[in-house]
Amino acid sequence: MPLDRIRIVLVGTTHAGNIGAAARAMKTMGLTELVLVAPRSFPDAEADARATGAADLLARARVCATVDEALAGAAFVCALSARRRDLAPIERDLRAAATEIVAEAAHGDVAVLFGPERTGLDTAAVSRCHRLVRIDTDPAFGSLNLAAAVQVVAYELRGAAHGVPAPEEGARPAPHEDVDGLVRHLEQTMIATGFLAPEQPGRLVQRMRRLMARARPEPEEVAILRGFLRSVTEGARAKWRGPAGTAG
Amino acid sequence: MPLDRIRIVLVGTTHAGNIGAAARAMKTMGLTELVLVAPRSFPDAEADARATGAADLLARARVCATVDEALAGAAFVCALSARRRDLAPIERDLRAAATEIVAEAAHGDVAVLFGPERTGLDTAAVSRCHRLVRIDTDPAFGSLNLAAAVQVVAYELRGAAHGVPAPEEGARPAPHEDVDGLVRHLEQTMIATGFLAPEQPGRLVQRMRRLMARARPEPEEVAILRGFLRSVTEGARAKWRGPAGTAG
Repeated sequence: MPLDRIRIVLVGTTHAGNIGAAARAMKTMGLTELVLVAPRSFPDAEADARATGAADLLARARVCATVDEALAGAAFVCALSARRRDLAPIERDLRAAATEIVAEAAHGDVAVLFGPERTGLDTAAVSRCHRLVRIDTDPAFGSLNLAAAVQVVAYELRGAAHGVPAPEEGARPAPHEDVDGLVRHLEQTMIATGFLAPEQPGRLVQRMRRLMARARPEPEEVAILRGFLRSVTEGARAKWRGPAGTAG
Repeated sequence: MPLDRIRIVLVGTTHAGNIGAAARAMKTMGLTELVLVAPRSFPDAEADARATGAADLLARARVCATVDEALAGAAFVCALSARRRDLAPIERDLRAAATEIVAEAAHGDVAVLFGPERTGLDTAAVSRCHRLVRIDTDPAFGSLNLAAAVQVVAYELRGAAHGVPAPEEGARPAPHEDVDGLVRHLEQTMIATGFLAPEQPGRLVQRMRRLMARARPEPEEVAILRGFLRSVTEGARAKWRGPAGTAG
């Protein structure tokens, strides 16, 4: 499982709450390995509070003194960075990087580095990386919260690892003849109430057909609407009885 | 710019900090319109603290009492939801939804709804939506923080906005309040004909909402159907007059 071989490395994090929120963000996407390089405060009650449900990731988090220690064993290393740099490694936008990371994780350990909140990673850390990963942001305001950046990266990694999920099994639309019967019933009822002149159905009925073609009503919806139309001409004799006796 | 026509609607948010973090998340991705439905506390110092740099979005945020008020003017409405539901609108994974949202925003206002932290959106709110949007998460831990969810959605919207095919020139769906008015009118008429017991609208009205969300009626179709409903209760006084004098 490629996600098991991807570690998230938070370097010099100053707000403990962000560590907890990052752990939660990772866990929602199936990432489990958190490494902290020289955090200002850890363990920390604020980290625990923000982790809600991801306490296990915090408990297993490895705390390192240096970036090199955190990268031990990693064959592919990426750095998140908001700013352009001299002498930077190859840049990738996040989506392309996620595809590469997942491919690399199939046969080796991968590390993804996030720098301190205010300053980002220093040049020494970036120079240890194979890729500089950029999250596209608004040019006027690129200040992504650290845990929010971890969330977006984790989301892309999960997407790259799993591909797009299969389409959902949707509701079954009623067959043509049922929808046709509904439109005819509507037309007859419109004539019965005096809303529509019988000799001039024309575009109005076409519009109703078009509306129903877009709506693709399910059999039960056809039954509801026909029941209602019956009640219009027959009065209170026609009442809705929900499925299996549930009213409405 | 399509992102300008996408509003983020936070319903019943209980933690003010999440409102601030959501504003920051939005701003990093170029989204600017934040709407709050019945927040537990707003304005709030914790929201300000977490917004860091996105105070302008909080200052301009609109506070509404109801979901319907928040949706006024929106022609396409999506709900984020973590759980499967009965009678749900069409489901999309986030990436597919983002493409649709950006395409819709090229010619109309779009709203994206996020529910309260613990409970998510209720069925009444979901039944007002055209799409149920799912963020793929680990099956064992799907507990995405509210602001983290906003961040991921905003990120995908920005990504979709940067490579969108030109919008198709299609019909203009009626805005939310018009479709809402139609469903309410239908409900009243169903009660008037004796089809529906007034104390038990329940699932039947939800089904009609869902049907209309799929159908996305145009303004003229709404006018036709309301004209017909009027004719049901008022009799032959209400007659259809086609556009510019053309009968039907």
